[in-house]
Amino acid sequence: MNKVSVALDAMGGDLGPEPLVAGALSAVRSMPTIMVSLVGVSGELERILGKLNSRWRSLAISVVHSDAAVEMGEGTFSIARKRKGSSIVQCLRLHQEGDVQGVVSAGSTAASVLWSIDLLKTFPEGGFKPCLPAPWPNSKGHTLLVDAGASPDVNSIQLAHFAILGSLYAKVFFGREKVRVGLLSIGEERSKGSATVKEAYARIEKALGDDFAGMVEGRDLPTGKVDVVVCDAFVGNIMLKLGEGFVEEAGRMLKKNLNLLGKIGGFLMLPSLKKLKKKLSWEAVGAAPLLGVRGNVFVAHGRSTPLAIHNALINCARLSSQGMSQVMLHRYEELLNKNPDLFLSGS
Amino acid sequence: MNKVSVALDAMGGDLGPEPLVAGALSAVRSMPTIMVSLVGVSGELERILGKLNSRWRSLAISVVHSDAAVEMGEGTFSIARKRKGSSIVQCLRLHQEGDVQGVVSAGSTAASVLWSIDLLKTFPEGGFKPCLPAPWPNSKGHTLLVDAGASPDVNSIQLAHFAILGSLYAKVFFGREKVRVGLLSIGEERSKGSATVKEAYARIEKALGDDFAGMVEGRDLPTGKVDVVVCDAFVGNIMLKLGEGFVEEAGRMLKKNLNLLGKIGGFLMLPSLKKLKKKLSWEAVGAAPLLGVRGNVFVAHGRSTPLAIHNALINCARLSSQGMSQVMLHRYEELLNKNPDLFLSGS
Repeated sequence: MNKVSVALDAMGGDLGPEPLVAGALSAVRSMPTIMVSLVGVSGELERILGKLNSRWRSLAISVVHSDAAVEMGEGTFSIARKRKGSSIVQCLRLHQEGDVQGVVSAGSTAASVLWSIDLLKTFPEGGFKPCLPAPWPNSKGHTLLVDAGASPDVNSIQLAHFAILGSLYAKVFFGREKVRVGLLSIGEERSKGSATVKEAYARIEKALGDDFAGMVEGRDLPTGKVDVVVCDAFVGNIMLKLGEGFVEEAGRMLKKNLNLLGKIGGFLMLPSLKKLKKKLSWEAVGAAPLLGVRGNVFVAHGRSTPLAIHNALINCARLSSQGMSQVMLHRYEELLNKNPDLFLSGS
Repeated sequence: MNKVSVALDAMGGDLGPEPLVAGALSAVRSMPTIMVSLVGVSGELERILGKLNSRWRSLAISVVHSDAAVEMGEGTFSIARKRKGSSIVQCLRLHQEGDVQGVVSAGSTAASVLWSIDLLKTFPEGGFKPCLPAPWPNSKGHTLLVDAGASPDVNSIQLAHFAILGSLYAKVFFGREKVRVGLLSIGEERSKGSATVKEAYARIEKALGDDFAGMVEGRDLPTGKVDVVVCDAFVGNIMLKLGEGFVEEAGRMLKKNLNLLGKIGGFLMLPSLKKLKKKLSWEAVGAAPLLGVRGNVFVAHGRSTPLAIHNALINCARLSSQGMSQVMLHRYEELLNKNPDLFLSGS
């Protein structure tokens, strides 16, 4: 069996390095082929490793020194100034030089996106922006929301680019050759929606052919009408967070409005609800790959637990060892060869 | 007591004129001061009135003849061609000429918006677009989502305009002088979000002062962090429909994941859930006023039931008799007098 090595940005994340290191130890315990490079302030990481478990260290865990991570919420200027030596940049350099096949970071998404573009470069040629797919659970499985957080301000060409990346990744994610991709709008008619989505429609139709399901609406994401819902990261992030807030508030509203019988009913439902909650948790996926960059960079939730990092590392190792980024790049180029005028303006 | 007359676009709506007429009969029965003009194909409306109840007709219901309504999903060109004589145009003309103090339509929102702009005109001067507020329920009450469906493609000046309209309407809706208005973005930091929201920030801050709560996120709508959430109609419509689909799918996922105990629990909760569902239904509000037009035009859901139309007519009558549109226009002008350079470009 071939080994696969992954760099973990051990300084990124809202909860400090400890849950990240714990997740890495857990991942190497359960997957014999994975090697994890913990990238961060070495003294601190060694201390945590010693505290948590040193037995596994020599086998599959290594420490690579870097400065601290970028703070959440830092502006682009501040990110750019601090880049030299920061943990995420160090991770990407290891990837760039071929020392690791994939990268996982729970740090600033803006920093991961910015530096992946800068160091690894995007595809195809022409300054295209990357996107992040988020799996939204429904009763039939999942729908991928693309872009869930990488590029908030995009034009119709970018949206078509996201649709192609989303469809290629969906084939990997769902493990089938046929997927249905919808373009998010405010009605199923082609004539409705913002100028940007109306312009994107024709390009996506041309690029995806039968895989394109046309315009879809907000309700089609949770009900799972299609496999991929395409939008910009501004709308995607708002939808994701609306879903989080909705679940939270629904519990509060329910509690406030239950009569005695309802309260007993709620008590009886608790075990099922807990199981469902666990099933739906983003921790089960762990991290999403940054699509459209020349590399396997996985972005994890800022508040990642050891379980989330465990799953993020395993997913990253599995997809990286399959050469996910190269496969997508190859397929993307095939598609462009068939449609050479896809991104010409006005086409 | 002063009478208040409202025109009902009796041909608009997905379910045909019958539930609309039934809602009008119900409204005049419960509110002695309201007079309703049913606008539509008179033969058909007379037939339905005869069938449902003729006793109340002579007192508070009148029929005004027009051609049929605009079909849902018709494009702007088709809408413009058919405008002459259509039921919504007839309603707006009655309002324009002072025959009615308010208008309710469950027909095409695009048509109501387009013709309200054309016939009644918007305020302030300068081609501003109108917006629709939708009350989103939470455990503390409601948050108004503005714009929920009138103007999908807007710039930062328009967003600031929506924030002002939203704050003025919220004071009417919640019945208090102090409201909190948030600008929807993808982070609380002022530096995050699309170029449009970042540009809108400074204008809104200047216009609303202490009423402006800064950037809010998707989760802050369902959890009710502020009284008003400001966005364009593209995002607003997607959020509304996401909420609808979410509730629908949550039921399906829950059913699929309940064990026997959980199923019994669910059964015990049913009465409370039904009561809650009724409480949360949009039927209780009925219709939203089109903010920023010089008139009281209320847009109802396309699938409005008699109950929804009943509530829409009562709300429209109540707010129209208080001169809602004139009050908002007056307050808007006061605000502009205090900030004369609010909408200057680059300010």
